[in-house]
Amino acid sequence: MNNIYLDNGATSFPKPKEVADAVYEYMTNCGCNINRGGYQSAYDVEGIVFETRDMLREMFKAEDCKNVVFTKNITESLNIVLKGFLQRGDHVLTSSIEHNAVMRPLVQLQKKGLEFDRIPADENGVMQLDAVEGMIKPNTKAIVVASASNVFGTINPIAELGRICNAHGIRFIVDSAQTAGALPIDMEAMNIDVLCFTGHKGLLGPQGIGGFILKEDMISLIDPIISGGTGSISHSEEIPDFMPDRFEAGTMNIPGIIGLHEGLLWIKNKGLDNIYEHEMSLTKRFLEGIYPLAEEGLIRIVGLPGIEGRTGVVSVQTLKKDCATAAFELDCEYGIQTRVGLHCAPHAHMTFGTYPTGTIRFSFGNFNSEEDVDTAIEALSKISADYK
Amino acid sequence: MNNIYLDNGATSFPKPKEVADAVYEYMTNCGCNINRGGYQSAYDVEGIVFETRDMLREMFKAEDCKNVVFTKNITESLNIVLKGFLQRGDHVLTSSIEHNAVMRPLVQLQKKGLEFDRIPADENGVMQLDAVEGMIKPNTKAIVVASASNVFGTINPIAELGRICNAHGIRFIVDSAQTAGALPIDMEAMNIDVLCFTGHKGLLGPQGIGGFILKEDMISLIDPIISGGTGSISHSEEIPDFMPDRFEAGTMNIPGIIGLHEGLLWIKNKGLDNIYEHEMSLTKRFLEGIYPLAEEGLIRIVGLPGIEGRTGVVSVQTLKKDCATAAFELDCEYGIQTRVGLHCAPHAHMTFGTYPTGTIRFSFGNFNSEEDVDTAIEALSKISADYK
Repeated sequence: MNNIYLDNGATSFPKPKEVADAVYEYMTNCGCNINRGGYQSAYDVEGIVFETRDMLREMFKAEDCKNVVFTKNITESLNIVLKGFLQRGDHVLTSSIEHNAVMRPLVQLQKKGLEFDRIPADENGVMQLDAVEGMIKPNTKAIVVASASNVFGTINPIAELGRICNAHGIRFIVDSAQTAGALPIDMEAMNIDVLCFTGHKGLLGPQGIGGFILKEDMISLIDPIISGGTGSISHSEEIPDFMPDRFEAGTMNIPGIIGLHEGLLWIKNKGLDNIYEHEMSLTKRFLEGIYPLAEEGLIRIVGLPGIEGRTGVVSVQTLKKDCATAAFELDCEYGIQTRVGLHCAPHAHMTFGTYPTGTIRFSFGNFNSEEDVDTAIEALSKISADYK
Repeated sequence: MNNIYLDNGATSFPKPKEVADAVYEYMTNCGCNINRGGYQSAYDVEGIVFETRDMLREMFKAEDCKNVVFTKNITESLNIVLKGFLQRGDHVLTSSIEHNAVMRPLVQLQKKGLEFDRIPADENGVMQLDAVEGMIKPNTKAIVVASASNVFGTINPIAELGRICNAHGIRFIVDSAQTAGALPIDMEAMNIDVLCFTGHKGLLGPQGIGGFILKEDMISLIDPIISGGTGSISHSEEIPDFMPDRFEAGTMNIPGIIGLHEGLLWIKNKGLDNIYEHEMSLTKRFLEGIYPLAEEGLIRIVGLPGIEGRTGVVSVQTLKKDCATAAFELDCEYGIQTRVGLHCAPHAHMTFGTYPTGTIRFSFGNFNSEEDVDTAIEALSKISADYK
């Protein structure tokens, strides 16, 4: 039995072959640090790291590649940005479908005097955009939202929120974990002040690398929560005020960056449009294939009915069987790898009425085929009809 | 011309072959996350991650492998520990030979009301142990020190400091970056409350992975500065209070952990004693080989004269030529890779009287040979005698 990986919302798999190849090549033949060696191969690696920053700048239409900062994951990025920027007495708005990578820092900050409110959404997670302006208060400093729900695939209206932020002079911070590498994100056109990204999902790099990109005027507004050696201004025990060193302390995950470089190259060659089209055609095929099961009352398809306004993520509840049991059977009997539970997003599940039971999440990626989808439909059909 | 890598103080290279092999194997054939998938291969990876924690527990004689936390690097570890533990009004003692991974967080905290003092050292960086107790104040909360200087190799008296901390009821936080994997570190016997480690130096893993180990009673005393999804208690927007989840938010660097696992296995098989003996025999050979150059007034060997009380790191100043030029020539003409400058440790250089010029650092590792050392001696001899 071959495994069918439908957990791309957690991490993309497989990656393009070049990703592991480049990591292996670096670890075997170079291995050195950057900014920290006075020899040629250290400079070569610096070139690839620079190029990776520049590819991210280009992909997200950012101002300047020096403002692309690498972190270990998007959770670290969001913590650095939120905790370094927000102060006691500030107010922020967030969406009703956030991941704990946004919510746990906000709840932690709330105990230190931050206020936040969640913009309401309908039962499909679609944000009630017309409520936003009325929720802005004199102390509202930022809107912080995920570009799409990691559980249900519902997309947040980033361009519209950017316009509102711009009109009200408040900052716009976006968690792009679920759309980067599939949907276009334009920091300039969408008025995004801080874009947080993860390297190992749609961007096809290894786990262990993520980052954020700042607009120039955000740099001095964020107090670095991580400081240390940067290989620059080594004479000083003060944090450098220039980018990206201000936010990049300690030895970097060079294998991770080198892998991400290959992932980004693959995306560039393939084209974002083609990637999106492939992902959504699989999602559409899956939704259409499981729709009869919903009509029979065997499953509930949670969230938007079609592919409009969603990513390649579909959450399902099995109505005749516990979801965890169903996911276990999908794996054991059909080799289908999904993710079951609350997906680190409890409030999103409340919004969709699937709390605390959770859902089974199917998430499609670049290397899934129509056959994978058909097998998943068939497996779900058998498992959900099995009343034992 | 073959390269001779003598920059193991920055990152060990090469790594054991198994490290890159295991990373490649994982990235190619598994690739999944842990705690986040309901399928078998996710559980297998969890097993390796658990085993890696347990090998670290064993190596450092820690209480419990659940208290081994992974981070991206030791700089992050130190920031989490120092910023999560120390409060306004607290006082800490540190050494005179610290890296900026300790000093920059302390200087940052100083601006928020932390006090710190540096325990004095002699001109070889040897800590004046008899000064320590007199420096302890009623508000002294911790001693924070590197186990050895990253620039000069001088070892700090960890066991003795641990005894002093224990006697005075203050906490002991150790940065083990320069000795882990070569010198024995025993959290229990040395009274270490928090041990920070990096994965990519003596522990032979890839860059991008580090961590820290807590004594049980430290857990609740450190407020996590990074929070987010953990794959556990997903129903809650609060940070889990159990370990290691309390400090591990977001997708982990699994390739990094898998590589580190192989590095630790290699160390275990080789034996710490044998590793230390190899490293120190090369260091001794190098010191003896360059001693005549120092007698001729061509170079200054900075720090301790012999291998007693030091690691496999030797810092040298070329007296007839700028150090940066000499390091450049070592690389270009002899393929010898060193590190020149202040090594992110300005105050250590002040202690040794090499600030702001800096030094050329030679640091030996597991895969260096006596021939490497001899070539380096010969090269340094030619370059330092070359007065042009």
